[in-house]
Amino acid sequence: MEFSSKLLANAVNEVSQLPGIGKRTALRLVLHLLRQPKEQTEALSQALQSMRSDLKFCKSCYNLSDVELCEICSNPMRQDDVICVVEDVRDVMAIENTASHKGLYHVLGGKISPIDGIGPHDLNISSLVEKVKEGQVKELIFALSPTMEGDTTNFYIYKQIQGLDVETSTIARGISVGDELEYADEITLGRSILNRIPFEASLKS
Amino acid sequence: MEFSSKLLANAVNEVSQLPGIGKRTALRLVLHLLRQPKEQTEALSQALQSMRSDLKFCKSCYNLSDVELCEICSNPMRQDDVICVVEDVRDVMAIENTASHKGLYHVLGGKISPIDGIGPHDLNISSLVEKVKEGQVKELIFALSPTMEGDTTNFYIYKQIQGLDVETSTIARGISVGDELEYADEITLGRSILNRIPFEASLKS
Repeated sequence: MEFSSKLLANAVNEVSQLPGIGKRTALRLVLHLLRQPKEQTEALSQALQSMRSDLKFCKSCYNLSDVELCEICSNPMRQDDVICVVEDVRDVMAIENTASHKGLYHVLGGKISPIDGIGPHDLNISSLVEKVKEGQVKELIFALSPTMEGDTTNFYIYKQIQGLDVETSTIARGISVGDELEYADEITLGRSILNRIPFEASLKS
Repeated sequence: MEFSSKLLANAVNEVSQLPGIGKRTALRLVLHLLRQPKEQTEALSQALQSMRSDLKFCKSCYNLSDVELCEICSNPMRQDDVICVVEDVRDVMAIENTASHKGLYHVLGGKISPIDGIGPHDLNISSLVEKVKEGQVKELIFALSPTMEGDTTNFYIYKQIQGLDVETSTIARGISVGDELEYADEITLGRSILNRIPFEASLKS
């Protein structure tokens, strides 16, 4: 693509560095900004810069936070002896949206994945094990994706804390609410029968 | 979507103002920037801001330009008596990519479209008519999209310059190169027969 302007070419080039955004989309976005008031572009640039320079990871749970200790960790209403272990900050948001978890979180920052060169020491696992060793944690809820990598990570952490006085659980795997049985995959369907729950319990949720 | 951080919420909010980008995509883009070096976010913000504040419209053809008179208008190698009339700066790029036009451009900034409230006075039409009145223009090539609005705009400009000493032409409408005849729409196929060209001429292009 030939540009008549270096400023335009530069802006399009930077925007097209973002994942999933090609040169054409970048040009469309940049031309859109040109048609909007200057203030919009300024607000966008400012928001991105201050986000990138001032955003912190919570020192306890590694969730994204504006302050040292995130809103969830510093909330006295949360049950601080139940910790939900998740891969990513997006999972924290997803679980928070369900309002089903009243405890705290621990964000690992990824899953163990030898193919991608991610080992246990690249993740926030040791600080989790420390927390458990301190003896204040009653239950760990593993809420990683039910994939090979997720299961490996769960198992690695489980081995690390084995013998310590803590309960462990994992999120239920089964048929999605609203799904048709005939289209469910065999493994999920098989597990959902093995891990069946009392009918009365299903009425409550 | 609930955010644990105001900085994050603000950045996601600004990014999701862009057309075709929802909250989820915005979050994905922002989290991507967080994983990249700080310099990338700074370069992006800087490029957008300087583009928005310093980019000009060429005073002659209204193409985007870093300087008062754009690269094309100030190029002595271009034929300055043939002007290609286009809707948008993107059309200039598209035509420049073909390397088929050696003259100058005139960017209208849109098409006459009463439904969208765009009349002739919202477009850069009067300056085009002035150029023609000065008598330096030999040919106007109408290169607007062959839609109702494009045809209306062509006709409006044609009426304005009627009687002046200038040739007018419009880009050829016909079957796209590589298209199958049986799938072409009737109007295009009909026109391509009425406006047939000498076979020898088709061999040259």
